[in-house]
Amino acid sequence: MAMAAVLSRATISLRLKPLTTTLRHFSSVSSSVSIDDIVETSKTDKIGEFKKRLRIVDIKGGENEGLDNLGQVLTVRGWVRTLRVQRTVTFIEVNDGSCLSNMQCVIDSDAEGYDQVEGGLITTGASICVQGVVVPSPGKKQKIELKTQKLVMVGKSESSCPIQKKVASNEFLRSKAHLRPRTNTFGAVARVRNGLAYATHKFFQENGFVWVASPIITATDCEGAGEQFCVTTLIPTSKEATDSSADAIPRTENGSIDWSQDFFGKPAFLTVSGQLSGETYATALSDVLLPYMIELELAFADLNDDMACAVAYLQYVVKHVLENCKEDMHFFNNEIEKGIIDRLSDVVEKSFVRMTYTDAVELLLKSKKKFEFPVKWGCDLQSEHERYITEEAFNGCPDIKAFYMRLNDDGKTVAAMDMLVPRVGELIGGSQREERLDFLENRIDELKLSKESLWWYLDLRRYGTVPHAGFGLGFERLVQFATGIDNIRDAIPFPRAPGSAEF
Amino acid sequence: MAMAAVLSRATISLRLKPLTTTLRHFSSVSSSVSIDDIVETSKTDKIGEFKKRLRIVDIKGGENEGLDNLGQVLTVRGWVRTLRVQRTVTFIEVNDGSCLSNMQCVIDSDAEGYDQVEGGLITTGASICVQGVVVPSPGKKQKIELKTQKLVMVGKSESSCPIQKKVASNEFLRSKAHLRPRTNTFGAVARVRNGLAYATHKFFQENGFVWVASPIITATDCEGAGEQFCVTTLIPTSKEATDSSADAIPRTENGSIDWSQDFFGKPAFLTVSGQLSGETYATALSDVLLPYMIELELAFADLNDDMACAVAYLQYVVKHVLENCKEDMHFFNNEIEKGIIDRLSDVVEKSFVRMTYTDAVELLLKSKKKFEFPVKWGCDLQSEHERYITEEAFNGCPDIKAFYMRLNDDGKTVAAMDMLVPRVGELIGGSQREERLDFLENRIDELKLSKESLWWYLDLRRYGTVPHAGFGLGFERLVQFATGIDNIRDAIPFPRAPGSAEF
Repeated sequence: MAMAAVLSRATISLRLKPLTTTLRHFSSVSSSVSIDDIVETSKTDKIGEFKKRLRIVDIKGGENEGLDNLGQVLTVRGWVRTLRVQRTVTFIEVNDGSCLSNMQCVIDSDAEGYDQVEGGLITTGASICVQGVVVPSPGKKQKIELKTQKLVMVGKSESSCPIQKKVASNEFLRSKAHLRPRTNTFGAVARVRNGLAYATHKFFQENGFVWVASPIITATDCEGAGEQFCVTTLIPTSKEATDSSADAIPRTENGSIDWSQDFFGKPAFLTVSGQLSGETYATALSDVLLPYMIELELAFADLNDDMACAVAYLQYVVKHVLENCKEDMHFFNNEIEKGIIDRLSDVVEKSFVRMTYTDAVELLLKSKKKFEFPVKWGCDLQSEHERYITEEAFNGCPDIKAFYMRLNDDGKTVAAMDMLVPRVGELIGGSQREERLDFLENRIDELKLSKESLWWYLDLRRYGTVPHAGFGLGFERLVQFATGIDNIRDAIPFPRAPGSAEF
Repeated sequence: MAMAAVLSRATISLRLKPLTTTLRHFSSVSSSVSIDDIVETSKTDKIGEFKKRLRIVDIKGGENEGLDNLGQVLTVRGWVRTLRVQRTVTFIEVNDGSCLSNMQCVIDSDAEGYDQVEGGLITTGASICVQGVVVPSPGKKQKIELKTQKLVMVGKSESSCPIQKKVASNEFLRSKAHLRPRTNTFGAVARVRNGLAYATHKFFQENGFVWVASPIITATDCEGAGEQFCVTTLIPTSKEATDSSADAIPRTENGSIDWSQDFFGKPAFLTVSGQLSGETYATALSDVLLPYMIELELAFADLNDDMACAVAYLQYVVKHVLENCKEDMHFFNNEIEKGIIDRLSDVVEKSFVRMTYTDAVELLLKSKKKFEFPVKWGCDLQSEHERYITEEAFNGCPDIKAFYMRLNDDGKTVAAMDMLVPRVGELIGGSQREERLDFLENRIDELKLSKESLWWYLDLRRYGTVPHAGFGLGFERLVQFATGIDNIRDAIPFPRAPGSAEF
């Protein structure tokens, strides 16, 4: 039965009768050309393939910077960066975000759609389609350009558009976080960030780690400090929230908040770390990767394995962006931080210095430099000391000995490590975890944490405990380190901060 | 200067003097062998490499099921699944989570560490190291086994261990979410889930998408429905939360909650979708992938492109797990859902049926089947109808026409699609987005949403708007679909549900 064959197969259903929805040019701009003349919509569903739109990086991202495509008739789609009208010819720089480079489109008055240039519609920020022939470019900035045959306006840009040709400050752009990826800097940050994330997945897959989604909502207090953000349904949903009465929050007889009426039946918080739940999977699957902050756990591993993994990981991802984001990295090298490519290459090629806390203290004691805070073994290192050690930063002081860190044989220190890099400071923090039940219980008691709520974590030490270790990486710091971007808020697409949850 | 060379390089610092932390065997179990005799810790930091622990999948995961390794002396580390003591010889099945298969270790009384078998320490759940020679196995289940030379107990397992040889129900295991990855089923689910996640990243990288971290905390109401979980610092942090007074929550003069004192200065919620912020990056970088739920946006694309992408994506990830998780997929095929491999192969090899809502209604009207709810164009399809159409499920009724969906030319339907698969129902939901400012504003007004809080979303239509589309995928449903696992809570490592935020 034909029907049966259909029914046992996957089905795509259009929710409601979807009338033909080609890329029809909607705006009322008068134009001699429609986008339908240029763009075909994809109708293929060949296995594992869909008709990819041609992107600028496909045209000019190769080794020959596009010279392979000379003579071809191609279409680019993107946003106007600049328009330069000269006596006989007009230059439109189009960017589609696929790479830093624009496609320079040269248009003269006999091209179809030229009326839109004359009509003043082709302004910075407008979206356009351009069909043209690839020709050699006489300009110094690029090897090829597009000699325009047809130009179609897709969406005009109102004159109030805050992203204009002149360079805006990063601070100003933070208030326009929805438009800043259209600038050179933030486009490049997004692409390098993407490269670092993908290399992260690749590295850990190649090394046999299993990616485990640890929960972001937790009733367990991991670090004994962090969880400040309560996640609750006791407060009405958004529409009513702004004028919700404080009296509407349910309370017990003695005036406490009645948590039994909350979604989880008890106080729940955004987690600050997936480590504890990560350990449960590491003691079953051996090595796991957690998605938030990038955390991982290695079973049957000690602090040396942990450090070796941290170094190998960092070298791998840095190498990946140096090789795969060349154009963007040259941009950062020229515009954001001189010498960043050399610095990153050093990370990839040179072995890391390993230094104990004791050695760091000795190094400081021997130095001729006068420090504001005197150095003594056992004290936290101050930033002046840290700067002295890496010439840039060294934030890795033994601030908190978390309850899960393995106690060393001296009984007073723990097996923990920090990876410090110039300028950014602590990039990675890790430790060997305490695998001994009695030691762990003592630490939990010392820190007045609750053994009851950690019953499952203690179980891991009751049933086949193993030496294990792990580390966490501040992904945004890694983006800073790899791009030279100064402010961490510029390394995050939509940063959250006190008073700010916009976009 | 030697110093300068050091200082300009990255540094790993051990937080405190970390005494030698080799994998010393800590438990007081009397044993003739120490783990130090077997295991070396990694000290290499060769570029992009760290000394990988040998895993069972490395030994027997290849095409020859380990026969290549005959005669080699190897060490495995893992957890005891079963112990069978026979007259002259003992079999220990060891699993390290790297694959479904155990390593069968054969040990006789003259092996070092055999005293631990006699002492009753080698029980299900205990962690051990075994060094031995790879020999052909006379058993039918495997081609090779390990003839044990040395056996070391790493961590014993108390007799209360809830994971024992006999099979426990999935329901029971949900209450032991910290130990269930040590079972065949949940280990396999974790590995296939990992495969699906990695294939997702790979597919979108290969197709030029940029991965963008959309925020999980938002003050914007995307769907006009979802955001129920308030994220707040008005309620004290965890330690004090259980007995926090309801009166401690700040209030304004008129008795409302005083949001100006909250972290973000206004009500903020866990987002239900990153789509809106995703669109901001899509209209700068063209195509983007968002991490939560797996959502994506395609610029210069319509509903056909969206569907083509959805089909290509699903085929790619399903093919990936069929090829890369063979052993686990055979397990699911035999133990969880007969025929799942054929069903998934069909998805990869056959083209998808595309059906409009109108056609679905007509199909139902023409059918001889008696439905409880009569079918009429314009009504929501009920599950009896949906089951009829896919023989399993069809949840894709036009329940909500979200404000951002593009209005079709008929003025009453929108350009939206669902991808339905047998058994699971709606796997993917997507739409072409409304790119026309006036249409979008009308819809926002109609639904009584706030244009003010969506100012930045409307900006995208003011400055170079483009036709664009996207979809979201329920990743847990994909895991269900690919493994045959019945209950969605078993497709999630640590599911959250009303009354439950444990682990």
